[in-house]
Amino acid sequence: MLNNKKRLSLLLVVLLLIMTLSTVGVQANEKAEIKNVILLIPDGMNITSTTLARWYNGGGPLAMDEMACGLIRTYSADAAIADSAPAGTAMATGFKSHTGFISVLPDVADMPGQKPIAAGDERKPVATVLEAAKLAGKATGIVATSNIQHATPADFTAHYPDRNKYEILGEQQVYAEIDVVLGGGKKYLVKEGRSDQEDMIAEIKRLGYDYVTTPTELADAKGNKLWGMFADDAMSYDFDRDPEKEPSLAEMTEKAIEVLSKKQKGFFLMVEGSKIDWANHANDPIGTISDVLAFDQAVKVALDFAKENKETIVIVAPDHGTGGLSIGNWDTNKNYDNLPLSTFIDPLKKAKLTGEGVESKLNADKSNVVEVMKEYYGIDDLTEEEITAIQAAAKTKLNYAVGKMISKRAFLGWTTEGHTGEEVALYVYSPNRERLTGVVENTDIAKYIESVLKLNLKESNEKLFIAAQAAFKAKGATVSLDESDKENPVLTVTKDKIELKFPAFKNIVIKNGQSIKMKGLTIFNGEVFYVPKEAVDMIQ
Amino acid sequence: MLNNKKRLSLLLVVLLLIMTLSTVGVQANEKAEIKNVILLIPDGMNITSTTLARWYNGGGPLAMDEMACGLIRTYSADAAIADSAPAGTAMATGFKSHTGFISVLPDVADMPGQKPIAAGDERKPVATVLEAAKLAGKATGIVATSNIQHATPADFTAHYPDRNKYEILGEQQVYAEIDVVLGGGKKYLVKEGRSDQEDMIAEIKRLGYDYVTTPTELADAKGNKLWGMFADDAMSYDFDRDPEKEPSLAEMTEKAIEVLSKKQKGFFLMVEGSKIDWANHANDPIGTISDVLAFDQAVKVALDFAKENKETIVIVAPDHGTGGLSIGNWDTNKNYDNLPLSTFIDPLKKAKLTGEGVESKLNADKSNVVEVMKEYYGIDDLTEEEITAIQAAAKTKLNYAVGKMISKRAFLGWTTEGHTGEEVALYVYSPNRERLTGVVENTDIAKYIESVLKLNLKESNEKLFIAAQAAFKAKGATVSLDESDKENPVLTVTKDKIELKFPAFKNIVIKNGQSIKMKGLTIFNGEVFYVPKEAVDMIQ
Repeated sequence: MLNNKKRLSLLLVVLLLIMTLSTVGVQANEKAEIKNVILLIPDGMNITSTTLARWYNGGGPLAMDEMACGLIRTYSADAAIADSAPAGTAMATGFKSHTGFISVLPDVADMPGQKPIAAGDERKPVATVLEAAKLAGKATGIVATSNIQHATPADFTAHYPDRNKYEILGEQQVYAEIDVVLGGGKKYLVKEGRSDQEDMIAEIKRLGYDYVTTPTELADAKGNKLWGMFADDAMSYDFDRDPEKEPSLAEMTEKAIEVLSKKQKGFFLMVEGSKIDWANHANDPIGTISDVLAFDQAVKVALDFAKENKETIVIVAPDHGTGGLSIGNWDTNKNYDNLPLSTFIDPLKKAKLTGEGVESKLNADKSNVVEVMKEYYGIDDLTEEEITAIQAAAKTKLNYAVGKMISKRAFLGWTTEGHTGEEVALYVYSPNRERLTGVVENTDIAKYIESVLKLNLKESNEKLFIAAQAAFKAKGATVSLDESDKENPVLTVTKDKIELKFPAFKNIVIKNGQSIKMKGLTIFNGEVFYVPKEAVDMIQ
Repeated sequence: MLNNKKRLSLLLVVLLLIMTLSTVGVQANEKAEIKNVILLIPDGMNITSTTLARWYNGGGPLAMDEMACGLIRTYSADAAIADSAPAGTAMATGFKSHTGFISVLPDVADMPGQKPIAAGDERKPVATVLEAAKLAGKATGIVATSNIQHATPADFTAHYPDRNKYEILGEQQVYAEIDVVLGGGKKYLVKEGRSDQEDMIAEIKRLGYDYVTTPTELADAKGNKLWGMFADDAMSYDFDRDPEKEPSLAEMTEKAIEVLSKKQKGFFLMVEGSKIDWANHANDPIGTISDVLAFDQAVKVALDFAKENKETIVIVAPDHGTGGLSIGNWDTNKNYDNLPLSTFIDPLKKAKLTGEGVESKLNADKSNVVEVMKEYYGIDDLTEEEITAIQAAAKTKLNYAVGKMISKRAFLGWTTEGHTGEEVALYVYSPNRERLTGVVENTDIAKYIESVLKLNLKESNEKLFIAAQAAFKAKGATVSLDESDKENPVLTVTKDKIELKFPAFKNIVIKNGQSIKMKGLTIFNGEVFYVPKEAVDMIQ
């Protein structure tokens, strides 16, 4: 039999063992609960875009460098080279889609390994991680330097089989109850800019947002809902930006985190460096460098927050490559390995503005081409052909002309003005060890976010998007579609004494004349109305 | 007091707790001892090379895909775009160097962040991880599809400030006591191929190697030392390879592992897919696909071994990008996102040989261009200009002509026939969690191998490479350099009754007429002799 002393010793040993091994156990499972995800998307950023920006910046590591952990396959459901709309859709929803489609399923999914689309599911809206996060009680936000209705931010917040319908996509965003929206695109929200004449800015204010349009107002905003529009359309490239008029991407990201992190249940934030892609389309390395560096500053803000916060995962995920940029070109076929860094960087360092920024310095008759190109773009040896090319450049397309001129002088190569099909780099910071790694599918980004935030995209889909006409008819209701107001089609459902009216692209159902807010949007894809399950349940 | 039953229960609980928590603990610290490293280098393989090969192969994951975990910066000590010689030197030694330099320090290191080269250290040989592994008692091996004296395999096994001196580099390899050497390059070892008229093949046999020249002989070799030469110069691209005459890279890798893994203390093996780079130089996508897929099969062999062996780390590390390949080109500026995969892959699928393989099918007067290009390269619509270009192509350069023709038809872009400056993908498999990750320097590959194999490069340098003339003179010895035989300079050292003769590029010192084997090579860089410390110690 054990005496008291021995019994005490045994108990102490047991306790000590439990404590020691538990500590080890905790280290092993050191999985801090992840409450927040910040997904930063550098649109169209291939590997060389980062190399060039890093050298331009002195050669030290970019903020995102330490997070590099794999590669992302970018192809869409039916094409080898992705458009931003399906590429963002994949990251937002976990489904690959078709060019131009914003978070709706494609008509066909015929790339190798793709599951075919079930009959009737073509163009069906699919829930985004932002929507699922919102259903889970989290705060949500989107930040972009393009107009906020552009493909990538739209992919997380709206659903439509045409990325160009900024009014439709923008209206959905207004009614999506996103907590923070920051970027450009005011002209698609003001009454006079919309063919439906709806005053979305007034709606934004009515819905309780702090509506801001300057960096100062942004800094001063105090509420829990924030909507900032800093340009009529896209915001400026960072090198061209007037800091009095437009905040930087880093400033917007910092403010978004400040607002969203008030939420006890955590948040999901998507931040896009939108115009890296545009610069690469134009083959303008100055635009690329400008906005990769600005993007990286936003990454730094997110990363600093995450490291302090310890419950936040930061993901950097380009959607595809654009332009086929390389350091080295046909003129370096033979001597590439003997050229000092200055060969490539010095010509770029002379530029003060991007190819887009330079355009604003040209006078109406473009008689000051030589002076402007020297002063702002660092080129003082324009040929006659180049002067002619600049003078012939279409409005808003000057960067397509001058980008090639500075690229030639900096020995940079390009293969296309379109997107390219290669994998892009994946970057993840996680406070625990569960990083996504390897060569992953773009759809894995959505699945990873779903997993770490414990969201449920399948349930979200079942809650948010029910094909309304079929569902209500199956319940014996009468269903009619009123497209008399082309911009604002309305689905009317009647049964017994209940009449439901669903105006498209809003989160509202009008039940017997009374407006009721729903947990999701009514989506009309041109053929089928989709409404939240809760609305279908209003009819027995 | 506890009764027996309670005591038993308590003990059981304790045991259970210990077992449960220990298991967790073991998982946390599950750091298998790493005995072996297999480093596979796909020369010149940029990201798009893998994308294209993967699609060509059906679209499923490549063997290396699951290992992707970061990016590698490739620049050299004094240039933004690396040559293979300094790029391989960096991975082999932990030091960035100058174009053309094989594992010797550069004259100048002026890229951002580089430490300057100490006066007198210019062109000093620096120890490789292979040499350090050998000093640590491990088996070592090199495998390549180029001639084995080519830059990358030479970087791990030899030292000289000129990558083109195949005879010098090859001689060092013969005396470096590498356990396994497999690849091409026989002509630089046979007596009649060498200006010094030394019969290196005879030396290889005298040194106890199984010397093999066919796949059958390779398979049948039973010894612990294996030297296989399967081509006079470089071996064939995999698509062009005659399996009766040349083994595949995977077969060579498998055999190398079989031989090296007999060593109790573990091994270091470097495997190069050499000609991915050459195909990218030529802008020949068929060559690229051929050898990326063959390389990936070798990765699979290494990975399968490592997963079974559990003490092996596998690293895949390209040395730099070449060619600037992209899927999508100037002809897809506007429609890139609407093109099915077949647009890019079908034209490539028609080719049976690479651009190099096709050359061997042309008759002497090149009168059969049309037939050969149709039959073996899948092009049946050659223009008159293209036929002329093929007929005008220099000997061994046909792939430079026809690569561009098939690329145009497959909508592939290229920016250069040289190397490019972007980061390349890093891939690591480790049985424990200590993977190299993030954006790393190419020099970090050497440091990572040093760390996981518990090697010591600094000590290896101190053991292997002492500047001989200065060291012996400091001891009061007389030193004379005999360059009368230009190919075989000899350093003679005399003091008291001791005479030491050091023939360059061998591991032998002749002491008073008697040949003694040293643990390292005598290196002559054109100015300074370097000998192992043990040789310096022979003079008091």
